[in-house]
Amino acid sequence: MLALAGLPLGLEFVFFTDRDDDCGSALGDTIIAPYTDEPALLDVASRCDAITFEFENVPAGSVRFLAERVPVRPGPSLLEVAQDRIDEKRMLVDAGVATPAFAAVDSIESLHAAVDKVGLPAVIKTRRFGYDGKGQRVLRSADEIDSAWEELGSYPLIAEALVPFVRELSVIAVRSAAGETRVYPLAENHHSGGILRTSIVPAPNLDAEVRAEAHAIAERIMERHDYVGVLTVELFEFVDDRAAGPRLMANEIAPRVHNSGHWSLDGAVTSQFENHVRAVAGLPLGDCSARCACVMENVIGEPPDVRAVLAEPNAKLHMYGKSPREGRKLGHITRLGLELPAP
Amino acid sequence: MLALAGLPLGLEFVFFTDRDDDCGSALGDTIIAPYTDEPALLDVASRCDAITFEFENVPAGSVRFLAERVPVRPGPSLLEVAQDRIDEKRMLVDAGVATPAFAAVDSIESLHAAVDKVGLPAVIKTRRFGYDGKGQRVLRSADEIDSAWEELGSYPLIAEALVPFVRELSVIAVRSAAGETRVYPLAENHHSGGILRTSIVPAPNLDAEVRAEAHAIAERIMERHDYVGVLTVELFEFVDDRAAGPRLMANEIAPRVHNSGHWSLDGAVTSQFENHVRAVAGLPLGDCSARCACVMENVIGEPPDVRAVLAEPNAKLHMYGKSPREGRKLGHITRLGLELPAP
Repeated sequence: MLALAGLPLGLEFVFFTDRDDDCGSALGDTIIAPYTDEPALLDVASRCDAITFEFENVPAGSVRFLAERVPVRPGPSLLEVAQDRIDEKRMLVDAGVATPAFAAVDSIESLHAAVDKVGLPAVIKTRRFGYDGKGQRVLRSADEIDSAWEELGSYPLIAEALVPFVRELSVIAVRSAAGETRVYPLAENHHSGGILRTSIVPAPNLDAEVRAEAHAIAERIMERHDYVGVLTVELFEFVDDRAAGPRLMANEIAPRVHNSGHWSLDGAVTSQFENHVRAVAGLPLGDCSARCACVMENVIGEPPDVRAVLAEPNAKLHMYGKSPREGRKLGHITRLGLELPAP
Repeated sequence: MLALAGLPLGLEFVFFTDRDDDCGSALGDTIIAPYTDEPALLDVASRCDAITFEFENVPAGSVRFLAERVPVRPGPSLLEVAQDRIDEKRMLVDAGVATPAFAAVDSIESLHAAVDKVGLPAVIKTRRFGYDGKGQRVLRSADEIDSAWEELGSYPLIAEALVPFVRELSVIAVRSAAGETRVYPLAENHHSGGILRTSIVPAPNLDAEVRAEAHAIAERIMERHDYVGVLTVELFEFVDDRAAGPRLMANEIAPRVHNSGHWSLDGAVTSQFENHVRAVAGLPLGDCSARCACVMENVIGEPPDVRAVLAEPNAKLHMYGKSPREGRKLGHITRLGLELPAP
């Protein structure tokens, strides 16, 4: 989708993948090798004016190796941070962003101590390589600590307070190589089974101060890390009955385009994919405004009834060409509203 | 662009081309052979559930051969008609559509007779294979007849009255396999040197009766030919100071998506490419409404200043990956208006 957004801008793409069935490879030359293969990395570096990555589980060392030779946007620092939930939370705290209480866990003793610290209910997650709710477990009582340790204890873990938020939001922002920042309308996200099901954009009934807080969070993180490209911050929103203080906590970041921004393909003047590519290529950013209200629904596990979807007057279907598998994101449907709700 | 519109609908594509550098080939299997190669045609037929073509200068005999084996949409009849300007004009007349006066020319004598019939100024065109103003010459006086014959007389020709129209419009319509018809907002088209430069959509200050007349023309042609897919009719609009009668004349048809519909990629709920693919695949049609007013400008001959275009807040750039050449369409820019003008 990044290449599809960049080709019409006159850009050319070289793909580097460790899988020989990679779907992007039809849109440009493809280098297939392990991500740590140094000759392949040198080949990539020699053929590109700028480099980006489309998921965050690429080896940070390889990204650093590339970044010494050619601009890698975003750079390796926030990528590395985003690969470890403890580093990520510490980065947020350092940036002055509120987060749920958290503690690192590397033994059954530290798990007990962590639960004491963050309270119950808590959620235990692997520090690395989790996605779509994989490698996570909710603890509702101290009785469950031992079985949680048995299940997940072979990995470095994080314990986080399960905070009583009202809803989950995400803010997607983009920063250009020249340092300009733009922010998409916030999304309200609904998950089920740990997987994003639906995003509503713009998030309905959003207080202006909460919106401003979300913008400030994204901008603060990007400025501190001289970030270039699209950054996503998943946020928890709280009702305004706490003591004066932030209404948002950050859950996690993604140093890339994000599923909750897929609405922008049909609903924004400039999609998140195009804006990421513009930023990486050192081009001016595009307008992040929504052209209409959108509801994005993921197609998960099973193919949709294509005929029924296309018969809806305002539905835009995006299938990814993946074979069906339980829990797999096969595509998404964006339903376009007729007009934006009043701000 | 047809494949790019169809892949997200879950469709798969096989390309048949006689050029080994064809740009669409990256998006699906490609069969490269002369268009008249019978084994290749049989291979194509065996691998497709439905077939379409993206330009009209494919051999009609090959299309007929395919159509005996698998649905070809649109079918060969209107394709064949569109390949010959005389057949095209006769088809329009048969469908009750007004056209400029015309006459077939195959000798210097018939050229003189044709100019007598259609009057001066007249335009002389090759009957076949003309595009972007190639193979055309305007005659303003009888003195120019002999030199026009010297220039073009080795081809079968048509002489047409050069009618004093107010502006050129185009109507793009789509008809589904189930016989449903939808029509895009009309475009006002501006040419220079025989090449489309700019389309403004919706055509400003369009009388409702002219719009209805354009819709009726497109629908009448599609119904008579049991047409499936996108059809374009280029129209001349006249001011309302003639005797009561049609305000539109048809200039030519294109049995395919059309340059004056490229705005629909960014400006319509469903692009002309997606709707053509939907029709060919037997799927329901999408909404043809404009989401905003659009001005589409072709990028011709030389690459644009990409940075300057992208710095415009409402400009969408679409480069086609073609190398620059004088008069060649290298891409287009669609500028999105903030809102639709009042109807």
